[in-house]
Amino acid sequence: MTHRIAILGASGYAGGELIRLVDSHPDLESSYLGAHRKAGSTLGNVHPQLGGGDRSLGSLDPDEIPDVDLAFLALPHGASAAPAVELLDRGIRVVDLGSDFRLDTVARYVAAYDAPHPYPEELGTWAYGLPELFSDQIIGIDRVAAPGCYPTSALLALAPLYAAGVISAEGIIVDSMSGVSGAGRGAKENLMFGAVDEGVAAYGILGHRHQPEMEQGLGAVGATEPQIIFTPHLVPMQRGILSTCYASLTGDLSRNDVLAVLNAAYANAPFVDVIDQSPQTRWVVGTNRALLTAHVDPRTGRVVVLAAIDNLLKGAAGQAVQCANLMLGIDEAAGLPTAGWMP
Amino acid sequence: MTHRIAILGASGYAGGELIRLVDSHPDLESSYLGAHRKAGSTLGNVHPQLGGGDRSLGSLDPDEIPDVDLAFLALPHGASAAPAVELLDRGIRVVDLGSDFRLDTVARYVAAYDAPHPYPEELGTWAYGLPELFSDQIIGIDRVAAPGCYPTSALLALAPLYAAGVISAEGIIVDSMSGVSGAGRGAKENLMFGAVDEGVAAYGILGHRHQPEMEQGLGAVGATEPQIIFTPHLVPMQRGILSTCYASLTGDLSRNDVLAVLNAAYANAPFVDVIDQSPQTRWVVGTNRALLTAHVDPRTGRVVVLAAIDNLLKGAAGQAVQCANLMLGIDEAAGLPTAGWMP
Amino acid sequence: MTHRIAILGASGYAGGELIRLVDSHPDLESSYLGAHRKAGSTLGNVHPQLGGGDRSLGSLDPDEIPDVDLAFLALPHGASAAPAVELLDRGIRVVDLGSDFRLDTVARYVAAYDAPHPYPEELGTWAYGLPELFSDQIIGIDRVAAPGCYPTSALLALAPLYAAGVISAEGIIVDSMSGVSGAGRGAKENLMFGAVDEGVAAYGILGHRHQPEMEQGLGAVGATEPQIIFTPHLVPMQRGILSTCYASLTGDLSRNDVLAVLNAAYANAPFVDVIDQSPQTRWVVGTNRALLTAHVDPRTGRVVVLAAIDNLLKGAAGQAVQCANLMLGIDEAAGLPTAGWMP
Amino acid sequence: MTHRIAILGASGYAGGELIRLVDSHPDLESSYLGAHRKAGSTLGNVHPQLGGGDRSLGSLDPDEIPDVDLAFLALPHGASAAPAVELLDRGIRVVDLGSDFRLDTVARYVAAYDAPHPYPEELGTWAYGLPELFSDQIIGIDRVAAPGCYPTSALLALAPLYAAGVISAEGIIVDSMSGVSGAGRGAKENLMFGAVDEGVAAYGILGHRHQPEMEQGLGAVGATEPQIIFTPHLVPMQRGILSTCYASLTGDLSRNDVLAVLNAAYANAPFVDVIDQSPQTRWVVGTNRALLTAHVDPRTGRVVVLAAIDNLLKGAAGQAVQCANLMLGIDEAAGLPTAGWMP
Repeated sequence: MTHRIAILGASGYAGGELIRLVDSHPDLESSYLGAHRKAGSTLGNVHPQLGGGDRSLGSLDPDEIPDVDLAFLALPHGASAAPAVELLDRGIRVVDLGSDFRLDTVARYVAAYDAPHPYPEELGTWAYGLPELFSDQIIGIDRVAAPGCYPTSALLALAPLYAAGVISAEGIIVDSMSGVSGAGRGAKENLMFGAVDEGVAAYGILGHRHQPEMEQGLGAVGATEPQIIFTPHLVPMQRGILSTCYASLTGDLSRNDVLAVLNAAYANAPFVDVIDQSPQTRWVVGTNRALLTAHVDPRTGRVVVLAAIDNLLKGAAGQAVQCANLMLGIDEAAGLPTAGWMP
Repeated sequence: MTHRIAILGASGYAGGELIRLVDSHPDLESSYLGAHRKAGSTLGNVHPQLGGGDRSLGSLDPDEIPDVDLAFLALPHGASAAPAVELLDRGIRVVDLGSDFRLDTVARYVAAYDAPHPYPEELGTWAYGLPELFSDQIIGIDRVAAPGCYPTSALLALAPLYAAGVISAEGIIVDSMSGVSGAGRGAKENLMFGAVDEGVAAYGILGHRHQPEMEQGLGAVGATEPQIIFTPHLVPMQRGILSTCYASLTGDLSRNDVLAVLNAAYANAPFVDVIDQSPQTRWVVGTNRALLTAHVDPRTGRVVVLAAIDNLLKGAAGQAVQCANLMLGIDEAAGLPTAGWMP
Repeated sequence: MTHRIAILGASGYAGGELIRLVDSHPDLESSYLGAHRKAGSTLGNVHPQLGGGDRSLGSLDPDEIPDVDLAFLALPHGASAAPAVELLDRGIRVVDLGSDFRLDTVARYVAAYDAPHPYPEELGTWAYGLPELFSDQIIGIDRVAAPGCYPTSALLALAPLYAAGVISAEGIIVDSMSGVSGAGRGAKENLMFGAVDEGVAAYGILGHRHQPEMEQGLGAVGATEPQIIFTPHLVPMQRGILSTCYASLTGDLSRNDVLAVLNAAYANAPFVDVIDQSPQTRWVVGTNRALLTAHVDPRTGRVVVLAAIDNLLKGAAGQAVQCANLMLGIDEAAGLPTAGWMP
Repeated sequence: MTHRIAILGASGYAGGELIRLVDSHPDLESSYLGAHRKAGSTLGNVHPQLGGGDRSLGSLDPDEIPDVDLAFLALPHGASAAPAVELLDRGIRVVDLGSDFRLDTVARYVAAYDAPHPYPEELGTWAYGLPELFSDQIIGIDRVAAPGCYPTSALLALAPLYAAGVISAEGIIVDSMSGVSGAGRGAKENLMFGAVDEGVAAYGILGHRHQPEMEQGLGAVGATEPQIIFTPHLVPMQRGILSTCYASLTGDLSRNDVLAVLNAAYANAPFVDVIDQSPQTRWVVGTNRALLTAHVDPRTGRVVVLAAIDNLLKGAAGQAVQCANLMLGIDEAAGLPTAGWMP
């Protein structure tokens, strides 16, 4: 049985990847593509790389959206709350790739965004769409907030260790690098080729909104909620996130002990591989995979856990499809690539 | 029915793409992966991007190669002639991605390579594997020499016009840019990141071996064999070829006339699109597509034809699979991607 | 004696290079920096790479500009005509890096820009600021239109040969590649990192405004004005232009003959080197140098001439300073770097 | 008075920068350029970007090296010890850009390199050439070990805070990103464009030899020697290091307090700027500058200090010249650029 899909925000980077994944998915078909500024354009103009010239993009007007089985919302922050609620009212499942429903309490939301939430009663009713950790909550539900790209990498790296009590709530540091596509497709001076190429810099230091999301995620699997320092960096590449995470071990564990905890946690996870080598983002770009490794420093009692993902796939569109698969009762891995290409 | 495939030269860039394409192909399965220096390594070490860790690479020793239906040879120049002949003797179909059997006469070969051919009697018995132009010769044959990456782009751009007598044999210029993967995976000082990044240069000026291949290709579709000037350039990107081709029109044609000739030639070609816009290599990277456009300069009576391909797919592994499909009686487009991703 | 300099358009890429060159110039000092949108900003904010934090940018209002000895105008097309005329009236020398005064007749201007010129009587009174070809007209004059970046490369490559009658007016093709900085610093969707990285494309095919400028330049040194086909390409790097130029030889010349013509033409040019190897843009980036070579194809009677420059230095700010040196009676090479760095 | 300089290891990246800096230095002149594999080549072939074609490179044979005032050694690890000792015996001052004399005790050296030192009695007699921290030891001395590129960035960021007792010896983490030029110019498979472009990865995790150098440097300015975790990452750019450093504050300090400590420490340092913004490597590439900033997280009591340098200048050749200036009694800043260019 084929499930009918709507994609809202079809003109952005994540939207393009959703279209590509749904088009090649054995059990899904795209019934509606909606966009804001690009409504009325053809797909060939908006995403020439997709090779499917003539399909036309509709608007974001809910009245235009047909009765599909599931809608992906890949919209700017703040723009998905209203259509999400309206689609749910119509009985349409929703996977929101934005940040409107990721945080689970009003207090957390207000602290992070310094603004009231338009639908406060909705907070906490959404599943947090990281299947490797929370599949129980995702299977069969009708509303999923897909995690941010950085939290996906950091939680995959740290959650099993934190859940097992192997690392302390104190002193967790997440130091991440991201390719430029994470910042979206809109024209901004600081994202021009001439502003990004051949340089690196940190941004959002101690104030990035993915930090409370990471703390919430670890808090959900561990005894207490930790306080995390998170530093994202922009690096001159298109795709990929590498998170280098530091934490204090609670006991005298070896590297093998730590790797064993990670391996056990992901034994049945189709997209997470725990490896010996240092993960390279190039090895996962174009796929829904996450690569993890860990090193232990006996001198300082700290562990370094590294995670590499494709920010637009496992960090966005791929993970959204993975959630949709679980919501719709399809095989979790259906339609999701695990082989990429390089160079 | 699934056809069994051997891939020799599995450790290089084209080899990696062949593995990826065969693995996801509905009608092919890879039965043997052979490599030279990397024999004995696992696929996970050689191509970590493929996500298929444990498969082991064999050697290039013909005795090790099982009785497959078809073998792809992605070996350095000069290294495929001997195994090709041996495999053919065993009744195994061969697609050679190298240059050993592309030129059709000893004279042409000697002029290009300044060396005798080890199997001169073989020259001329192979089909030239550009299906858009020569599918008649490819269907059902047991030996195909897949074209070079630059000739693929130039012939797709120029052959229909030359065949139609629309452009003159005099004054053809092919000015091409290629990403770095075209130069292979071996360590060379001039291909280091620090030697390639942030710079462009021409190479092989007036002496590149793809120029006689282009002349042979046009000669095969037109009345006479033209003399082409070909200038390849290395640009700081991983993949993609853009060829900007210049030729003199034989009559008073408009842009629409020229586009009509191209459109007619490729009406049934699943991988060639004639477009209005200027083709970007980014739009075809990761796919087997070729994008073409043309402009006419009435002042000088010249036409400018542009072609963009992925040098490792339509220019190598993708085209090889397209040929294999025709050789094996499968749908020409089976297993070949037409939707890429960017950024 | 130190000459006082104003730089209008100080916030752009060329403006930044002008500031850097003037600041380190032994005989020039920057007395005024003017900008449009960035008026009121500090230099540290606008050009953090210059390391000179506190200097403040003024406006473009002529009343604010002090009585300097020479003004560089690095403004968008159309924006320099009015201030140029006003500054000249005040007795201030002007080097315009824009295109307002490059074309020498109203007819040529209207054909290129499809608009009337605001000061038609000015056209033809400006020197064309390519010192290697036109220093006689530049020395001591008060108004110079600095050439476009592409024409600089193409004219350096072709003008000596055309002046010597060695190449024909028929069949000249200029195929160029440029880094992204040539398109300016303003935010545009097609110049985003995610839109430029890892891809190449041609633009302005048969319609780029630098083509009539090239024809005018060759016409000025040769017997007749040729008709040129010019195809610019955008490549994923910050700086550098490589022009690969094709022309028909009028006689039976060898490569050495052609190189001798180039060498003779540039024997006394401090910034042009004729070399044996294929010029790489990396070798000139950061300098005011141009590297040239040529190859002859006896089969077709054509010559291929290659030229590499830094589009922001020899193609813009460096050449403007070179012109200013000649206008002010300083050594032509003063303050202009010839040693770059890589990687 | 001009000082005569020899540069050994002239063919590498740091060697090229040393040549460029010495050539444009008002008080230095290069009297000898020595290389290993490239002995006998011209400078034009080895460093075409320097524009100085005809100078010839000599060998590393000490007998060939004339009696200069100072020699820069930019040689691989282990290769500078012998020539350094021999040159010192001849009364020639030495700045070693390699790692042979950076560590100050045999124990530290053996721990880091797992090999005996060929001249153990030399260890501890060399000054550690980070002028912002140790100029007293550098002025007038005849032997200086220039710091590693990563330690330069980390020590500039952390040493003033550690010396002031503001940060704890426990829990220091240095997370760094470097451009590819830091890995040298030799051909290696993992440094090919096709292996580096569009990807990031950590390397040398918990085992990089710059970590003991950082610990030694902080130990030299503080009460005790700390234990540092150091994770270097390779990012796809040519130049630049960004170090993001984490440490625990010993008291209740604000961001302004921390910035004040840094500002006081570098009040007279011509190359270090403490800024408000997030430092970008692009702002310092091509210069000898270091940019620092710091942020304080009151929740966790930690400080984040960021430092950006050009690994080949402030992290290598520029710093070596800065040391040479102090050794020779010249102005510390002579001949060292502070204005770079971008894009």
